[in-house]
Amino acid sequence: MYKGKIVVALGGNALGKNPQEQLELVRETAKVIADLTEDGYQVILGHGNGPQVGMINNAMSNAGEQNGPDFRMPFAECVAMSQGYIGYHLQQAVGNELRRRNIRKACATVVTQVVVDENDPGFKDPAKPVGIFYDEARAKELMAETGDVYKEDAGRGWRKVVASPMPLKICELELIKDLVEKECVVITVGGGGIPVVEEETGVRRGVSAVIDKDNACARLAVDLNADRLVILTTVEKVCTGFNTPAQKELKEMTLAEAEQYIGEGQFAAGSMLPKVLACMKFVSETGREALITSLQKAKEGLEGKTGTVIRGK
Amino acid sequence: MYKGKIVVALGGNALGKNPQEQLELVRETAKVIADLTEDGYQVILGHGNGPQVGMINNAMSNAGEQNGPDFRMPFAECVAMSQGYIGYHLQQAVGNELRRRNIRKACATVVTQVVVDENDPGFKDPAKPVGIFYDEARAKELMAETGDVYKEDAGRGWRKVVASPMPLKICELELIKDLVEKECVVITVGGGGIPVVEEETGVRRGVSAVIDKDNACARLAVDLNADRLVILTTVEKVCTGFNTPAQKELKEMTLAEAEQYIGEGQFAAGSMLPKVLACMKFVSETGREALITSLQKAKEGLEGKTGTVIRGK
Repeated sequence: MYKGKIVVALGGNALGKNPQEQLELVRETAKVIADLTEDGYQVILGHGNGPQVGMINNAMSNAGEQNGPDFRMPFAECVAMSQGYIGYHLQQAVGNELRRRNIRKACATVVTQVVVDENDPGFKDPAKPVGIFYDEARAKELMAETGDVYKEDAGRGWRKVVASPMPLKICELELIKDLVEKECVVITVGGGGIPVVEEETGVRRGVSAVIDKDNACARLAVDLNADRLVILTTVEKVCTGFNTPAQKELKEMTLAEAEQYIGEGQFAAGSMLPKVLACMKFVSETGREALITSLQKAKEGLEGKTGTVIRGK
Repeated sequence: MYKGKIVVALGGNALGKNPQEQLELVRETAKVIADLTEDGYQVILGHGNGPQVGMINNAMSNAGEQNGPDFRMPFAECVAMSQGYIGYHLQQAVGNELRRRNIRKACATVVTQVVVDENDPGFKDPAKPVGIFYDEARAKELMAETGDVYKEDAGRGWRKVVASPMPLKICELELIKDLVEKECVVITVGGGGIPVVEEETGVRRGVSAVIDKDNACARLAVDLNADRLVILTTVEKVCTGFNTPAQKELKEMTLAEAEQYIGEGQFAAGSMLPKVLACMKFVSETGREALITSLQKAKEGLEGKTGTVIRGK
């Protein structure tokens, strides 16, 4: 029985730190995605890439230092590599699991660009460190040569910092829609998408930025007219007073309640806060519900048995 | 006017040696792909990845040496990264060019696995060197640890060698068909595809191998029921007596003539020979024509004005 179209956002940390870990962990993920597919959900899978793009960017930065400026790999290209790398593992594992269950659905990865605004406030003061450490002199040379920003990082050396702009448009949306229509399990907006800016002429080019993958998945879910946004993380439910004696698990929250909790500083920046904000975006733009729960509880969460539901009112 | 479905194979060397070169070169490629699209061809674009996967594999091998065995990146994963990296540049450039011309067609990259036979003779004696040089002791350690094969390379040190098995099946074929049906310009089988073997249960896993991209494109063209296979290379026409005083450009050749030339050793192994063989495969399996010409002459070649046509008889 068809139960609707869901955008599922998977954390980059849930994929492990290296290829061996990732290959094992994607098998667990694949079982969950196959469970949901078997249950009647049309799944569109987005994923983070923090540890992976870090690993790739480090390796490429070292190669650039060895081989010269022409070999310096821009950050957007590193994101593209991470989409190929993670997407391959996910599509292989999900495909294997679907075939094991005789579910005749395809699964594949679409290399996905996401448009951001060159005037996004994030670009004025980039803050997200990526890649290897340099000494001050080399960092300043690279700043002058590349236009990228490097900052001193807690006494450990200098690192490139990039912006975290908001995702405005999924470039490959129409094509993702076509594949969804054909009931394909689509893997997309990997790492939040390859960040590009779009000139007035329509010409796109890559920029150094990290797009939050939960935000990108919310954008995608709105634009695909998805029935539900599902954000999978390490905890089963969102909590207030997290890690304090007053910790309380939330079964649900309305937009008004979510705003109140945010005002109280209940959700950690860079952790639960962006997930709640992404859900609020989806809920306020569509009037539908979003769910935050753990990978292991995704199926039960969708059955209403656990997780935290975010709804309009 | 719709003129048919063509699989276009683009050389990895035509993409340059580094990100800056590639970003410039894909603009020229994009113009040609847009020309063909504007002319009425439905283009499916395959591409090589020799220099690119070499660069990625080198960077990842160095990182593996630094960070330990768990961080060692298998070769299939490096191919996946190269598909993301090259695919991103190509889809962005082709998309930009299509929008510039007000052609409302999408262009995107599908991360593509290609099944090879574990018993392919190529795996018995792998011969294609990839990645960085090691000293003998380290190479032998890696051989024992990973099961990969390392060989001494012309006195320069030891390198990993991988097999070049024949492509048997494009895993994402159905989905590529769906996108072609929607008139999307699809970029696929990058670097000949991510090499995987398929167990009897249907479970797939990556293997260390390089699939010839012309062979993969021929497989794809047959399986997509394409009207034409077009292999783009550095020369306008295939020649007999290439680089000799007797050099003669071929306007066309039948399968019988191609076999005769091959028997005479007219085409260099690792250069024109695999291209001619891939064309022969497509022609003999479909009864249709294949074309070998340069990127710059692709449009004229399809108009029958230049290039070398391979036909049944």
